[in-house]
Amino acid sequence: MMTRGRIEAFTDGVLAIIITIMVLELKVPHGGSFADLMPLIPVFGSYLLSFIFIAIYWNNHHHVMQTVQHVTGGILWANMHLLFWLSLIPFSTGWVGENHFTSASVFLYATILLFAAIAYHILQLTIIKSHGKHSILAQALGKDLKGKASMILYLLGISSSFFKVWISGIIFVIVAVIWLIPDKRIEKRLKNNHKTV
Amino acid sequence: MMTRGRIEAFTDGVLAIIITIMVLELKVPHGGSFADLMPLIPVFGSYLLSFIFIAIYWNNHHHVMQTVQHVTGGILWANMHLLFWLSLIPFSTGWVGENHFTSASVFLYATILLFAAIAYHILQLTIIKSHGKHSILAQALGKDLKGKASMILYLLGISSSFFKVWISGIIFVIVAVIWLIPDKRIEKRLKNNHKTV
Amino acid sequence: MMTRGRIEAFTDGVLAIIITIMVLELKVPHGGSFADLMPLIPVFGSYLLSFIFIAIYWNNHHHVMQTVQHVTGGILWANMHLLFWLSLIPFSTGWVGENHFTSASVFLYATILLFAAIAYHILQLTIIKSHGKHSILAQALGKDLKGKASMILYLLGISSSFFKVWISGIIFVIVAVIWLIPDKRIEKRLKNNHKTV
Amino acid sequence: MMTRGRIEAFTDGVLAIIITIMVLELKVPHGGSFADLMPLIPVFGSYLLSFIFIAIYWNNHHHVMQTVQHVTGGILWANMHLLFWLSLIPFSTGWVGENHFTSASVFLYATILLFAAIAYHILQLTIIKSHGKHSILAQALGKDLKGKASMILYLLGISSSFFKVWISGIIFVIVAVIWLIPDKRIEKRLKNNHKTV
Repeated sequence: MMTRGRIEAFTDGVLAIIITIMVLELKVPHGGSFADLMPLIPVFGSYLLSFIFIAIYWNNHHHVMQTVQHVTGGILWANMHLLFWLSLIPFSTGWVGENHFTSASVFLYATILLFAAIAYHILQLTIIKSHGKHSILAQALGKDLKGKASMILYLLGISSSFFKVWISGIIFVIVAVIWLIPDKRIEKRLKNNHKTV
Repeated sequence: MMTRGRIEAFTDGVLAIIITIMVLELKVPHGGSFADLMPLIPVFGSYLLSFIFIAIYWNNHHHVMQTVQHVTGGILWANMHLLFWLSLIPFSTGWVGENHFTSASVFLYATILLFAAIAYHILQLTIIKSHGKHSILAQALGKDLKGKASMILYLLGISSSFFKVWISGIIFVIVAVIWLIPDKRIEKRLKNNHKTV
Repeated sequence: MMTRGRIEAFTDGVLAIIITIMVLELKVPHGGSFADLMPLIPVFGSYLLSFIFIAIYWNNHHHVMQTVQHVTGGILWANMHLLFWLSLIPFSTGWVGENHFTSASVFLYATILLFAAIAYHILQLTIIKSHGKHSILAQALGKDLKGKASMILYLLGISSSFFKVWISGIIFVIVAVIWLIPDKRIEKRLKNNHKTV
Repeated sequence: MMTRGRIEAFTDGVLAIIITIMVLELKVPHGGSFADLMPLIPVFGSYLLSFIFIAIYWNNHHHVMQTVQHVTGGILWANMHLLFWLSLIPFSTGWVGENHFTSASVFLYATILLFAAIAYHILQLTIIKSHGKHSILAQALGKDLKGKASMILYLLGISSSFFKVWISGIIFVIVAVIWLIPDKRIEKRLKNNHKTV
């Protein structure tokens, strides 16, 4: 009975705000010279990285939602659960940027990304559960290697944060690259589905 | 003459912003160690609780609006009245979190939740008034035990805030749980209605 | 060629954000007792007033837009002009509240409301210009007594701000009440129009 | 497979937030007299200018998107790339306003505008690439003199920021005026297209 349109609209709104309020952590410096901008460079770096992550989530969310034919209460709450973890990204982004990537802040950043990835995985499982093992999403995901690889990489990023934070940084970039490479699974399945129907 | 779509879009926008700006109360600490995160734990707790309340309101609002066939001026203003009280939740959430649940802050938090619940009740009554006692919403709500129970619980939470704030906290969790348990009333009615039509 | 839907969606977004970020001026007090809330009472009062004004604008905007059949460049920019003045309301609301209604802050508050009213008037004229004197909006507005009365009242409110700010305050409330009383003009015309068509 | 509607909704959301949070840089002064407003005049000036730029982008984005018949992954990421640069405008606007147009702040302001213009250009090229050289957008743009002129003007504005910042200011106003003059290219092509179809 619930419409897909409104859950998408609400998610769009929340993600649009998350991606935009992150920029508020780039606090306008009081001085007006280039030197005053220097301390902001790590904040800018963490902003750029988080911007890409949120954009990837928006993109994937869009694709996954297209396979949803009826929204159940479970899907709604799985989606809210995902939004909760994503809503914490501006905080962890600001902390990691302001403190120039201390161990603790990188640990928190990676942990929140891990929980968001888990929430996304749960959202997919909830959709598949209500739409059947032969649904478009179930077929498109297959074993969901990308999703599982991301979670393992985040775990590595969490571990490395105690020793060398730059390793964690490299790992975050690798995860982003994995997802930025176009993923045709769902698009293909949707197309095939349309053809056969 | 007024369309349901735009009132939903506006409400979605306001709720998406409320749920997201609450996280701004989680102020990025200046220090970069785990110890610097400790003072934020009560703020995080109040954020989590309020996130769940807003999510519940969004979910219920979505269901109630689906029963609306024509938006009157009364429904519009009843909705604005609800949004007004919900818009104060980020403030009360921040206050209760920053002050580690003092009596006054818990009192305010519960009072705003009570007024939001009353506003929601008024919204439902306004819809029923304009759509008739045999409308989908009127039948689905019945005596609206959940709504009335919530209001009584908030009153208890307000009272207990003067003595033991942790009792108020438990009461808030109980209200959240009551609403998180799936409520099939409206969905059922809408389905039945579709079948008979 | 431009669609009404997207101009409405953008306006909804901007108004939803304006109405919600105003609440950020209610800064969470450091103390946790009721006494710490006292200084916020004028801020709360100005927030409530501005919330009602934005809600009235959203409501009226919704009605006026329903009479638009094609969006011209002129309508788009007249709408942006209106949003510009409305976007300043959180600032003037915060200033008037934080300074407990000094002459200067009340003057600014009234001036921004006046410019918003003028911008709204221009928007209506632009729509009528492109849709013809016999269009739904032109007939519904007639001489637009409410719009003109508001502008005169704002001018009075600006003048009185130099002598007695409480007179300005009463004038603002009068304007709000004028608009809160249901205005059936456009709804009636749209209904009639549907009947004849 | 991706729908144009959701990319438009997300862009609307982000632009609505960008245009509105910029006003938060107009920090409410502590004093309540007109003299306390004086330091805010340059901030207000930069806000007005940036408001117009974002409004122009929204307007143009709306037009360009109307020519899109299918959204590819490339279009999506080109759009995200544009939003990234636009999301930095509140920061550069705040900096340029708070520091009364120092060389460095004007340089940054112009640079971000330049990158946004380049991103917009890339978005157009990406759409044309996927829709063909005979598509509506390709024909409407022609040699895109306005786009190229803007980029050259921004380069001039960046250069002049080292010598005379008021020259940069004049250049920004010229760019805004160029775009404010109604551009009928896409509207015409869309109309012609409808006629022939």
